[in-house]
Amino acid sequence: MSAQTTATIITIGDELLIGQVIDTNSAYIAQQLNKHGFAVKQRVAVGDTWNDIWQALETAEKQSQIVIITGGLGPTADDITKPLLCQYFGGTMVMHEPTLAHVTHIFEHILKRPMIERNRQQAMVPDVCKVLHNQRGTAPGMQFEKNGVYFFALPGVPHEMKGLIDSKVLPVITQTFPQQIIIHKTLLTAGIGESFLAELINDFEAQLPSFIKLAYLPNYGMVRLRLTANGTHERSIKEAIETQFATLQQLVAPYLVVNEDLSLQAVVGNLLLKKGRTMATAESCTGGYIAHLITAQSGASRYYKGSVVSYDNEVKQEVLSVRSDTLALHGAVSEPVVEEMATGILHLLNVDYAIAVSGIMGPDGGTPEKPVGTVWVAVASKKQTLTQKFHFRFDRQRNIDLTAVNALNMLRKLIIEG
Amino acid sequence: MSAQTTATIITIGDELLIGQVIDTNSAYIAQQLNKHGFAVKQRVAVGDTWNDIWQALETAEKQSQIVIITGGLGPTADDITKPLLCQYFGGTMVMHEPTLAHVTHIFEHILKRPMIERNRQQAMVPDVCKVLHNQRGTAPGMQFEKNGVYFFALPGVPHEMKGLIDSKVLPVITQTFPQQIIIHKTLLTAGIGESFLAELINDFEAQLPSFIKLAYLPNYGMVRLRLTANGTHERSIKEAIETQFATLQQLVAPYLVVNEDLSLQAVVGNLLLKKGRTMATAESCTGGYIAHLITAQSGASRYYKGSVVSYDNEVKQEVLSVRSDTLALHGAVSEPVVEEMATGILHLLNVDYAIAVSGIMGPDGGTPEKPVGTVWVAVASKKQTLTQKFHFRFDRQRNIDLTAVNALNMLRKLIIEG
Repeated sequence: MSAQTTATIITIGDELLIGQVIDTNSAYIAQQLNKHGFAVKQRVAVGDTWNDIWQALETAEKQSQIVIITGGLGPTADDITKPLLCQYFGGTMVMHEPTLAHVTHIFEHILKRPMIERNRQQAMVPDVCKVLHNQRGTAPGMQFEKNGVYFFALPGVPHEMKGLIDSKVLPVITQTFPQQIIIHKTLLTAGIGESFLAELINDFEAQLPSFIKLAYLPNYGMVRLRLTANGTHERSIKEAIETQFATLQQLVAPYLVVNEDLSLQAVVGNLLLKKGRTMATAESCTGGYIAHLITAQSGASRYYKGSVVSYDNEVKQEVLSVRSDTLALHGAVSEPVVEEMATGILHLLNVDYAIAVSGIMGPDGGTPEKPVGTVWVAVASKKQTLTQKFHFRFDRQRNIDLTAVNALNMLRKLIIEG
Repeated sequence: MSAQTTATIITIGDELLIGQVIDTNSAYIAQQLNKHGFAVKQRVAVGDTWNDIWQALETAEKQSQIVIITGGLGPTADDITKPLLCQYFGGTMVMHEPTLAHVTHIFEHILKRPMIERNRQQAMVPDVCKVLHNQRGTAPGMQFEKNGVYFFALPGVPHEMKGLIDSKVLPVITQTFPQQIIIHKTLLTAGIGESFLAELINDFEAQLPSFIKLAYLPNYGMVRLRLTANGTHERSIKEAIETQFATLQQLVAPYLVVNEDLSLQAVVGNLLLKKGRTMATAESCTGGYIAHLITAQSGASRYYKGSVVSYDNEVKQEVLSVRSDTLALHGAVSEPVVEEMATGILHLLNVDYAIAVSGIMGPDGGTPEKPVGTVWVAVASKKQTLTQKFHFRFDRQRNIDLTAVNALNMLRKLIIEG
């Protein structure tokens, strides 16, 4: 196996080191590089500090052939990246006329605001770089070369960074560097813990050839299993991974949700589309999060009609037709209430399937009988309603996530069963 | 100014390098360290590869006094971190009886499943570490010392990591290392771009003393401004930053949303609580996301009654009482429809304020007259309804986010005005 071309990702910004923002750029860049056969060696985040950025560049240059830098190119004064890059690569700052024309155009025709000196300076670049035209914003990307290593400096705004990765960076690196073939095959399981899954496929893992790796990716009570093969002969590694993946699917069959890298909500959506059915949700404690997960997918309008977020008990009664007796007798977090919410939304929105949830997400609102983390879920079709009680713990966002995942999985089973 | 104690965060896992998961752990750790007066020097993510982890430890040891490692401690075979740490710190693996008792208890009393050898092995630790009891899971945390540097290895599961940071790591490091005082003051602006804001506060920034830094944190059409002061004399730096922060607030007054590090939805919630008013939402294109943002906050039930997610036009008519004429004449994405949705939900849920949104989020569904990114927003009180049309671009998730932020900001202004 020839040595693989590797990349280092450097993200710049004090906000990353004080935890004010979560770095989603690195994940996107890593995905794209990987898909195109480049391995990411390291991701590193440094602050807006001259020495730290400089050192990160030096380290990256030694360990990788491709270095991708994001952040630090905005119009404001806390950005020091551009002058640093200019010095690192031994250049002089010059005005890049096509970029200036582009920035001017954006201000005159799109933003319709006067342009100020600070905006003009966005068009200044080191004369030793190749400018990468940023269609989506005012800060240009820059490409540098040093000792055979390719450096790409991109703005940190996610959609601008994505545009430049797709239109500029990938075309250059795929033409410049030899690529290994990397193939991932991923499946999703539910209802079995990581360690039991590992016990189940222990012998399978032991017999894998050295060019195929197995990874466990547990998340919210579900475990994703990923096989990764790499090499240079496409057909042979493809055949090998397909064979292993087929065996793996058989071994985990009772727990298999889907044999693709799909989210649970996508699996539910695909099932509904295949059967030509529709669904709706009635959410109390999840406050619209299940609806959001479903509608975050393009095309959801073909099977998803809507939700009633009944955060207040009045809404449960008046919109979802939950009886006041039921609420008074059992409380909002109870089996009879979620049953009535499910049948209520089923009829109100005239759909084939429904999810209803009610629970106590915390940190406040718990009682000795119904502590924080108590959740009732109902899933219903026109023929039947199934309910389940859950006891989660810990923090609010995690309880919301766990409720959503478990409710979607209950619905998935109901749809499959009929 | 004495040199500040610095930390390096190392996250371990192939999944981070192929972009399959987004690293939220680092942000939490960085926040906590920062709050307690420690500066994060660098965050680095490496794969499940012996040499890369080893090298990351060596680099971290040279640059920081505190090293926090997460990930790589799960029960499955793709984890190599524990044996590596054992060798790095020159120890031998031994069974830690109290951890074994804890793991056994979890299996017998909580999971109610038989325990297998793999679970038992979670209680094996290097004999050179101090074990950090993990109340929330089976993988123990570990504390090592080498050349005066403190290393903490924690499981990657977010709520387990958080529990250990709070109960074990912070108490040790705050007692061991001298801390600088760090004070952040953050405000949120809306309706002004980053470069214009920079122009507005140019002179202010130039006169800041060297121990106070200004950072711009733009996000979805809003810009957060953060002042950070650090030093050793609490009173003097506190006075200095308060004075500067007061000046900054005056300078940006026309654009100021809030002079705290709060989200827009928290600001809206606080306004409603102060006035004793309630609200609801009627969402089409955002599919429950606005409801989710509002209800992600504990205590939202005091002012938020619920939402109707009317993804399907039938729901707009039958639940929200939008007239079929209006839909037929103007289409679902139109000013009259969002107006009727807003008044519909206002009456249906009997609230004081409402948000209604309808738009085309993409990538499909656009037409020449209403391209992808066209969004109508209405905000209503019992006295008036205000509407605004937006033209967003780019990707689906960003359009959903931008719609939510703009709608919440419109509602904020309406509440303030009366």
